[in-house]
Amino acid sequence: MLNSALYRSFLIAPANRLDMLLKFHRFAPDVGVIDLEDGTPLNEKESARDTAVQAAEQLASTSGPTRIFVRTNAPGTVWIDDDLEAVAKAPIAGIVIPKLGTTRQIVEIERRLRALEVQNSRPPMEIILGIESVSGVHNIVDIAAHSTRACAVYFGAEDYTTDLLGYRTTDGEEVLYARSRVAIAARLSSIAAFDTATLEIRDDDRFRHEARQGRNLGYQGRICVHPRQVELSHEIFSPSEEEVDRSTRLLAANDASLAKGIAVCEFEGQMIDGPLVKRAQHIVALATRYKQSTTGA
Amino acid sequence: MLNSALYRSFLIAPANRLDMLLKFHRFAPDVGVIDLEDGTPLNEKESARDTAVQAAEQLASTSGPTRIFVRTNAPGTVWIDDDLEAVAKAPIAGIVIPKLGTTRQIVEIERRLRALEVQNSRPPMEIILGIESVSGVHNIVDIAAHSTRACAVYFGAEDYTTDLLGYRTTDGEEVLYARSRVAIAARLSSIAAFDTATLEIRDDDRFRHEARQGRNLGYQGRICVHPRQVELSHEIFSPSEEEVDRSTRLLAANDASLAKGIAVCEFEGQMIDGPLVKRAQHIVALATRYKQSTTGA
Amino acid sequence: MLNSALYRSFLIAPANRLDMLLKFHRFAPDVGVIDLEDGTPLNEKESARDTAVQAAEQLASTSGPTRIFVRTNAPGTVWIDDDLEAVAKAPIAGIVIPKLGTTRQIVEIERRLRALEVQNSRPPMEIILGIESVSGVHNIVDIAAHSTRACAVYFGAEDYTTDLLGYRTTDGEEVLYARSRVAIAARLSSIAAFDTATLEIRDDDRFRHEARQGRNLGYQGRICVHPRQVELSHEIFSPSEEEVDRSTRLLAANDASLAKGIAVCEFEGQMIDGPLVKRAQHIVALATRYKQSTTGA
Repeated sequence: MLNSALYRSFLIAPANRLDMLLKFHRFAPDVGVIDLEDGTPLNEKESARDTAVQAAEQLASTSGPTRIFVRTNAPGTVWIDDDLEAVAKAPIAGIVIPKLGTTRQIVEIERRLRALEVQNSRPPMEIILGIESVSGVHNIVDIAAHSTRACAVYFGAEDYTTDLLGYRTTDGEEVLYARSRVAIAARLSSIAAFDTATLEIRDDDRFRHEARQGRNLGYQGRICVHPRQVELSHEIFSPSEEEVDRSTRLLAANDASLAKGIAVCEFEGQMIDGPLVKRAQHIVALATRYKQSTTGA
Repeated sequence: MLNSALYRSFLIAPANRLDMLLKFHRFAPDVGVIDLEDGTPLNEKESARDTAVQAAEQLASTSGPTRIFVRTNAPGTVWIDDDLEAVAKAPIAGIVIPKLGTTRQIVEIERRLRALEVQNSRPPMEIILGIESVSGVHNIVDIAAHSTRACAVYFGAEDYTTDLLGYRTTDGEEVLYARSRVAIAARLSSIAAFDTATLEIRDDDRFRHEARQGRNLGYQGRICVHPRQVELSHEIFSPSEEEVDRSTRLLAANDASLAKGIAVCEFEGQMIDGPLVKRAQHIVALATRYKQSTTGA
Repeated sequence: MLNSALYRSFLIAPANRLDMLLKFHRFAPDVGVIDLEDGTPLNEKESARDTAVQAAEQLASTSGPTRIFVRTNAPGTVWIDDDLEAVAKAPIAGIVIPKLGTTRQIVEIERRLRALEVQNSRPPMEIILGIESVSGVHNIVDIAAHSTRACAVYFGAEDYTTDLLGYRTTDGEEVLYARSRVAIAARLSSIAAFDTATLEIRDDDRFRHEARQGRNLGYQGRICVHPRQVELSHEIFSPSEEEVDRSTRLLAANDASLAKGIAVCEFEGQMIDGPLVKRAQHIVALATRYKQSTTGA
């Protein structure tokens, strides 16, 4: 990751629902997103901007670990320019751009953001890239490479599958190509990756299953469409006690082996060397870091 | 889709089998393909062209919903030039080019087709791109982008896997990357996508299973290697009653929610907004369209 | 494949373990790899070069079917230049370059090899490309296309998944995209592909399962991290008796059908034509070739 920020959860709520937005700090997602796009009805697109700014200001005055972002409407819509202008006045960490499809879109948006930052004498805003269309999936490597301020990307499986004219299944085979590709692009640009949402908000087993899939594929966290999913996401994306224990034992076995001049050794039935040692170190470091963030919260 | 044509089924029969070809209208696939390539033995490659033209003429004089295409031999073979010249005289909707591997091939074929259309004073022929080699899968996005008259693409898993030196399984994991990629390329160029065939012609459960997989992945229909598969294909690629019912209820719930100024609502356990609403609209529209085509047939 | 060499097994052992290296001919892998990279501890990186050369010389003087390669340290490390210089003096078939990420790396290494070959008046060395990073997977098509002497590529799932910040599962869904992509790139450049290793060295069922997956995906063999895996690998990557029998029957049925002027016929429940006939021919040829190699050994 480029910086020390956390990316386990991306809790999103509609920009026209001030009551919901003001609860962000209570649920403490790593990223809280005020949604001007699909979450906001067409006839409130303008008024919701004011609510978004108001929410951002109130959230900024409260202490809490959550970094606040605003999701604007998509490139090419009649709303995005005014969205950017409005939110550039708010004390937010950055913006989320949904339905990105081309490098040109991200380049133009970043040019606009620089101008707005100068105009408002404000610190730079980060960007979370929204990839949820067929062209977005196709172009994500270039889109991420052209961004100078992306800290993360999210993969939106529902919009993607609708755009593909496909259908969703519980095992997600229909998005494996796209979901893999977005995670790969994130790593190529050293940014974090948020996995798609689980819409079945009362089905914790399904959330856990899908979150584990995303974690295996290289995602650091997930979109949460309900506050109860934040805790589940932090649970799944943190190394388990069992993983930390095994990693600790593996590192000890590797050290003992190296002391004998042997770089590849058998450990609990597995031949281990370079990559497994690095993964174990990563797991232990991640567990420490996430534990500190919980204690600190 | 670019036009109002249907793409649920692509029934293919050998060009040297006039008896089989003349039954196309009875089975009423959306697309009927007269096959000069793998379906025609080497020693009948020339004579089969005449049969193909004869079949096309007789089929054109019969009323029926099926659009007739001819599959020529592959680019680079000694037959393709004469194939194109012969079929350009026939009253067909278009041609199917198997084993496309490079953009150059499609560009040259389309140049040739334009010349033949002028020469024969005939209406333009559409093209269905055949992607069934490793290079075809690798280059499909560019191939589709370079075509000015492709209406669809098909993915041929058997040829592809043979070219890959791989082996076929029932779950198709070995072609998931390629099958996903072809569907994505089709959407990027706004053309239809036909999924690979099921060769086990007496195994309806297998056909249904594989057809559902293809539909989830974004395909609109399938290659049918036996007439009995046409009906199965139409069954699976049409929205089910259950899907239409749920979509109708979902749209009503969304309307009711929007009336209260809420753009994201819970519906039967799922949080729904933009993409699910669009998919429900697509399902309802598709069901209506396919029902009309059945009534009309 | 470009040449007649075999690629069913890639047995790797640390360069600082002369005892293990000298057993290569006993286990008779198709490729035996002396590992200067992850298999060699940091404090033996220099001394292991001498052991590697010594092992290569002793193995060259023994008769055996195994072709000997040396895996150098990765591009960009402080060791690779001296590795190349040292191994160019040894009687090896070629080198294995781990963690390739860019075309530039392979171009520079090949330039260096040409110079070393002139300097040592030795025959050209082949290269096995090691793809086991996110950038390697992303760039593999170009890397393979830029290589003038690659005979094969290997996919390393453990390093890849660690680089991706992902986690390994038994079904390997998290590497399906990458594993598919590497096999495709190998075919595009007409080189062989070695599948990733199974680290659970006592779990033969798991090895067989993963080896079958790799074979389906287009791999010709596997990395073996323990001698016992060589035999398993040859077992799985050779056509089974059942496959050879079925292929022989299929070819006979196809011939009988062609004699009647029919190029597509039903065979044991399947509609068969071009691709299935080619695959059957490939299976029969492969079985003959592998049987000869066993008899010859």
